[in-house]
Amino acid sequence: MKYLFTNVVGSFVLDDQLEIIDSLPFANMQEYEHKENTEQKLKKRHPQLTPLPLDKLPKVLLQFKDPQYYNAFYAPNLALTKAAIKQSVTEDIFVMQTIANINELDKTINLLSKRVREWCGWYAPEVVARISDHEKLMELIGGRSRTELLKELKESDTMGADIPKVHVDEILLLARQVRELFRLREQHETYLQKVMQKYCPNVMELAGVTLGAKLIELGKGLKHLALLPASTIQLLGAEKALFRHIKTGARSPKHGIIINHPLIQNAAKTSKGKAARMLADKISLCARLDYFKGEFKAKEYRKELEGKLKEDHSSLKSGNNP
Amino acid sequence: MKYLFTNVVGSFVLDDQLEIIDSLPFANMQEYEHKENTEQKLKKRHPQLTPLPLDKLPKVLLQFKDPQYYNAFYAPNLALTKAAIKQSVTEDIFVMQTIANINELDKTINLLSKRVREWCGWYAPEVVARISDHEKLMELIGGRSRTELLKELKESDTMGADIPKVHVDEILLLARQVRELFRLREQHETYLQKVMQKYCPNVMELAGVTLGAKLIELGKGLKHLALLPASTIQLLGAEKALFRHIKTGARSPKHGIIINHPLIQNAAKTSKGKAARMLADKISLCARLDYFKGEFKAKEYRKELEGKLKEDHSSLKSGNNP
Repeated sequence: MKYLFTNVVGSFVLDDQLEIIDSLPFANMQEYEHKENTEQKLKKRHPQLTPLPLDKLPKVLLQFKDPQYYNAFYAPNLALTKAAIKQSVTEDIFVMQTIANINELDKTINLLSKRVREWCGWYAPEVVARISDHEKLMELIGGRSRTELLKELKESDTMGADIPKVHVDEILLLARQVRELFRLREQHETYLQKVMQKYCPNVMELAGVTLGAKLIELGKGLKHLALLPASTIQLLGAEKALFRHIKTGARSPKHGIIINHPLIQNAAKTSKGKAARMLADKISLCARLDYFKGEFKAKEYRKELEGKLKEDHSSLKSGNNP
Repeated sequence: MKYLFTNVVGSFVLDDQLEIIDSLPFANMQEYEHKENTEQKLKKRHPQLTPLPLDKLPKVLLQFKDPQYYNAFYAPNLALTKAAIKQSVTEDIFVMQTIANINELDKTINLLSKRVREWCGWYAPEVVARISDHEKLMELIGGRSRTELLKELKESDTMGADIPKVHVDEILLLARQVRELFRLREQHETYLQKVMQKYCPNVMELAGVTLGAKLIELGKGLKHLALLPASTIQLLGAEKALFRHIKTGARSPKHGIIINHPLIQNAAKTSKGKAARMLADKISLCARLDYFKGEFKAKEYRKELEGKLKEDHSSLKSGNNP
């Protein structure tokens, strides 16, 4: 009984005591990548070779702790692993990192904007109260020099205090920072759009940039998303409600994060569940098209959905629902 | 029976039917501020005037709804209130806003730094792992142009992926933003130090900038802090543990936020409670000195505390604790 065993060092022939009786070491990585050639050569020399059974592997590997092999074994193996890690970085990762960061930026912006509001409220409460949009207020406060700000922000008949300049500067600096964070968020979105345009045009077209990216994040990558059943996609992001349903028998959720899609937002209350199911179906198809590099069909799908949901909506309104 | 009644419009003499029988309106706010003069004049004209009893006030005030008085009544009253609000803005508010913002910046910085780490880790995992300090890493990544970064950050033998430039830009922008947040935080601290140096030099000297500001925040202003008993100051920030103690009889907390003070940090484990009590005593004194514009005594107090705690520490160590 003779065994054939190949690793990154070379190809080996072992006898039934698992001693090495013949070997052909690889000269470089190229030879390892085409290991069939080397194995073929050994098979010619030893006509009756069987592949090494898995249960004998640990014993064989022990031999490679021998200094004779160890270096030849360790370094290329490490290099191979590193290369595999390198290869594993796909667009998925960037889409997921970016959408996660957009979410975090949103939280941050909200937190710091509220602080600017409160802080600046001591100086110009009327202006702060009038402008309810965070971004506009940050543009107003952060986009000015201190002198301009002191003049423009204050209404003649204000109950805001006259604040020494040294205090105003801190508010100004913070507002500027928040304004920059708003801009970074915008930049991230533009970038995300570019990446997704190439990587998953169908998903992006049908679900939109933000929702599409979130679905990829929740689905743990485009590949995995493409392999998920449509019913799972329908409930992505509603895991808590789903498990509550399973555990306690509470009502099952009808939609996860895709509730944010305009098609579902605009659907009648009674047909939201149906709309979610139909949309999830199409998104699932889109993810598959994108992952397997298929055609661009998202526009058709969207029209189809719009048509069906409209019909549904109007038949409901006219009371013709059977 | 004749009553004297003064409001922002003027001074009035009322008969026992509460009808106005004489009046001296104020010409301006100055006259209102020195209302005694006007009242004196009326008292001379009507020798036996008594101040209006409180229970008759509602009926009298109704008369001022009359258009004859309403405008003269409403506008100055509003102005007075606004002025009072204006006056109420003290340094307290800036100290509290700033320290609250520093806390929020810390949270934000932590959140976004972790994101940079994860994101950048796909490109240069070795560098990210080696530099464990967030601020240093942000300086390294955020302080460079894209080309420099691509060259310098990568180790020759890396398992990081080769990332197209378009992705690197996003990481770079985020890292720069976080670096700016670090700088803003630093700037806030310098500013806080300046404000507190003037406003509460004793508290700042004894408790330090950050801890002092937090105590003012938790104590709801320097005035309120100065009026709190030392035992309350000792437990500021440990409210949860205190109420648990009261409710469930769990062990009472020995120190609140002042545990962060170096004197308590360095105290022996068994004398932390005692150290906290002594420190809280002195901080309470400092707050009073600062609020009532007393001398600068914090340095003395600090030395006294250091001496006592050292004694305590050494007697403990040599086993002489009675």
